[in-house]
Amino acid sequence: MKAVVLLSGGLDSTTVLAQALEDGCEVMALGFSYGQRHTRELDSARRICEHYGIRQVVVDLDLSSFRSSLIGGDGDVPEDRGGCLADEIPSTYVPARNIIFLSVAAGLCESIGADRIYIGVNAVDYSGYPDCRPEFIGAFERMLEAGTKAGVEGDPIRIVAPILHASKADIVRLGIRLGAPLALTWSCYKGGDRACRRCDSCRLRLRGFEEAGFKDEIEYE
Amino acid sequence: MKAVVLLSGGLDSTTVLAQALEDGCEVMALGFSYGQRHTRELDSARRICEHYGIRQVVVDLDLSSFRSSLIGGDGDVPEDRGGCLADEIPSTYVPARNIIFLSVAAGLCESIGADRIYIGVNAVDYSGYPDCRPEFIGAFERMLEAGTKAGVEGDPIRIVAPILHASKADIVRLGIRLGAPLALTWSCYKGGDRACRRCDSCRLRLRGFEEAGFKDEIEYE
Repeated sequence: MKAVVLLSGGLDSTTVLAQALEDGCEVMALGFSYGQRHTRELDSARRICEHYGIRQVVVDLDLSSFRSSLIGGDGDVPEDRGGCLADEIPSTYVPARNIIFLSVAAGLCESIGADRIYIGVNAVDYSGYPDCRPEFIGAFERMLEAGTKAGVEGDPIRIVAPILHASKADIVRLGIRLGAPLALTWSCYKGGDRACRRCDSCRLRLRGFEEAGFKDEIEYE
Repeated sequence: MKAVVLLSGGLDSTTVLAQALEDGCEVMALGFSYGQRHTRELDSARRICEHYGIRQVVVDLDLSSFRSSLIGGDGDVPEDRGGCLADEIPSTYVPARNIIFLSVAAGLCESIGADRIYIGVNAVDYSGYPDCRPEFIGAFERMLEAGTKAGVEGDPIRIVAPILHASKADIVRLGIRLGAPLALTWSCYKGGDRACRRCDSCRLRLRGFEEAGFKDEIEYE
């Protein structure tokens, strides 16, 4: 089995990568350089691929014309934006991001003959994001059945979302059980030497480790 | 009505752009720089946007890791590859290209508040391409309903494919009726000063003009 794993370098996608390897897949990691505020996550992704000795493709995708507070712009990162945890569409929503990432992953699958895409989408903490829901994953698979060579030939690309219904504590437990190099991951929205501990992403991560009963080994401010 | 129009600079997408303007849309053109063999099409797209006085976004998308004889590589362009006109998947198939382009277009729609994407897919001359079929367009719309903010809010992005069932002669007639600047378009797979007249794309185009009874005003070798 060959798989493309969408790897950002964060806790979630690194745990998903560990699951793909546990499942016995031959893995190619796929990342994107799309005008993020910092490259800290991409650096993490590179180190994680080196750790596992797997190949990584980083696709340059200039989305600078896309307004979003997550990818550049003048606004500060909201430290307590709430929306990410609430049942509404957050203001930091990046338009169609998972749609674009999965599409490129599908192209890479067809290029290298992979039959599955692993993605760390999560419907628990990100219930407000339309493209983090199971309905979306199913609809995307059906689109791939109709629109790809593999699909029309009867062997469609499948999307594997191992942490779709997992809490952050579940993800930490799974990552640790699979021996994922969680100390190499980066979750903070900011790009400093140490994680800020205050942004939504840091808070979710810290709470996850706490609930799972493990120590988070990255450095915090 | 705001629309994103996928504009390559070729005959088909330029006719589709003319249709979007005829339909009364406020248009933003979207093109891709993805490692094409030549930038002749992109130059055409720029001139066409200048002609109409519309805004154009060109997204850099590095697909150099994707094998395909259409985007770089060592192989020559087949002059008579046949497959494009046959009922099978051609060897020059670019993996998931329309899927990727439509995904980025959907992101741009969400960014600028557009509610429709115009695309020049065609199921007549490209019946062998999975992502040029009506089934694919429908499945993509349903995926957007599930996976975008506009979709879950009940006002999904629609995909408009005005030349889906048109022959090349139909497209030429439509373009001319709409006053599209067909003399600015470029279809040849090669990037010379003049179109080669011999590649599949040139042959389709010339046959279309001939059947429609119009003169093709671009320069040929």
